[in-house]
Amino acid sequence: MGRASKREEIAEAAFRQFHAKGFNATGVNEITKAAGVPKGSFYNHFSSKEESALEALSRYGRSLRFDMLTSQDRPPLERLRAHFEFLSEDLLENGFVRGCLVGNLGAEVADHSEEIRTAAKRGFDGWATRLRELLTEAQEEGDLDDSIDVGTTALFILSAWEGTLIAARIDKSAAPVEAFFRTVFGGILR
Amino acid sequence: MGRASKREEIAEAAFRQFHAKGFNATGVNEITKAAGVPKGSFYNHFSSKEESALEALSRYGRSLRFDMLTSQDRPPLERLRAHFEFLSEDLLENGFVRGCLVGNLGAEVADHSEEIRTAAKRGFDGWATRLRELLTEAQEEGDLDDSIDVGTTALFILSAWEGTLIAARIDKSAAPVEAFFRTVFGGILR
Repeated sequence: MGRASKREEIAEAAFRQFHAKGFNATGVNEITKAAGVPKGSFYNHFSSKEESALEALSRYGRSLRFDMLTSQDRPPLERLRAHFEFLSEDLLENGFVRGCLVGNLGAEVADHSEEIRTAAKRGFDGWATRLRELLTEAQEEGDLDDSIDVGTTALFILSAWEGTLIAARIDKSAAPVEAFFRTVFGGILR
Repeated sequence: MGRASKREEIAEAAFRQFHAKGFNATGVNEITKAAGVPKGSFYNHFSSKEESALEALSRYGRSLRFDMLTSQDRPPLERLRAHFEFLSEDLLENGFVRGCLVGNLGAEVADHSEEIRTAAKRGFDGWATRLRELLTEAQEEGDLDDSIDVGTTALFILSAWEGTLIAARIDKSAAPVEAFFRTVFGGILR
C-alpha cells in the first residue's frame, strides 16, 4: 500500500482524536499511536499538527452529507429537518459527546490560529450558503413565508445548531436538541 | 494583605487565561506568571488546574449581570435585549475574541471533566431558569404570545447565543450577532 495508505491512516486518526478531545489535548504522539505508525512518520505527511487539523476539518465537512440538502427527493423544509436529524444521530447515539468539529475548533482555537479559523469560516460559509439556497427554494415553492430574510435565518439556524450541540454535551441530554427542532421547525420556519 | 489577596490574584489570572486561551492551552505556569506569584504558590490555594477552572466559571457567572434580567426598570423583553446587548459588548469591542467561558469550557472539556461539565451545567441551568421566568413575565404582561413554550424557548435562545458567539469568533464579524438579534427579537419573540 505504501505512503498514500499511511497518510490516510494518520489523517483519519488525527480527525478522530481532534473530534474526541479537541486541538490542544491532542498530541502528535497520540495521533501516530492511534494510527499504529511510528511517531516520526507523521512529519513525512504533515508539516505540523495544525496542518493535520485542516485536513480533519475537510474530512469532517465531507461527512456532513450536504447532498441531503440539495437532492430533490423531498420538499426543502423536510430535507432541512432530515439534515439536522442526521447530524444529531452521532450525539444522540453516543452519550452526547464530540459535537461539531468546526464549532469545537472554532471555540478552542479560532482566536489563536488564523489558518484554522479561515478553514472553519470556509466550512461555515459553505454550509450557510446551502441553507440559504434551501430556504429560498422553500419560499419559491410557497412553503415558507416571503417575509423571512433567508440569509439572516440561515446564519442564525447554523449558529443555533452549534450552540445546541454544546448545550447538549454540557447537559448530557437531548433537551437542547429537542428545543432546537421545536423552535426552528415549529416556530421560525413554521 | 497576605494569602487571601494572593489567592484572589491567582484566581483572577486563571480566569483571564482560561477565557483567552481555553483550558488545555493554559498551564499553571502561565497562570502564576500572569498573577506575578511563584509557581509553587498556586497549590497553596488550588488543588489542581481543574479547581481553578471551577472558580473561573463562578467568577465569569458573576460578571454576566443577571440582575439586568430581574430588575423591574423596564418591560421584560427590553431587559432581555439589554442583557444580550451587554453580553455582546466584550465581543464587539475587542475584535471578536473569547466568547462565553461556559460554552468554551463546555465545548473543550465537558466530555472529559465531570466536575467542569457539572459546573457548566449549573451555570446554564440557572441562566435558562432566569430567561424562562422573564419570558413568563412577558406573557403575563401580554407582551409575548401565550402559545410560546417558555421553557423550550429559553433553552433554545441560550443555545443560540452560545453558537452565535462561536460563529462571530470564526467569522470575526458582527454578522452572526446581528442575525441573533433580528431572529430572536424580530421573529421568535415578536
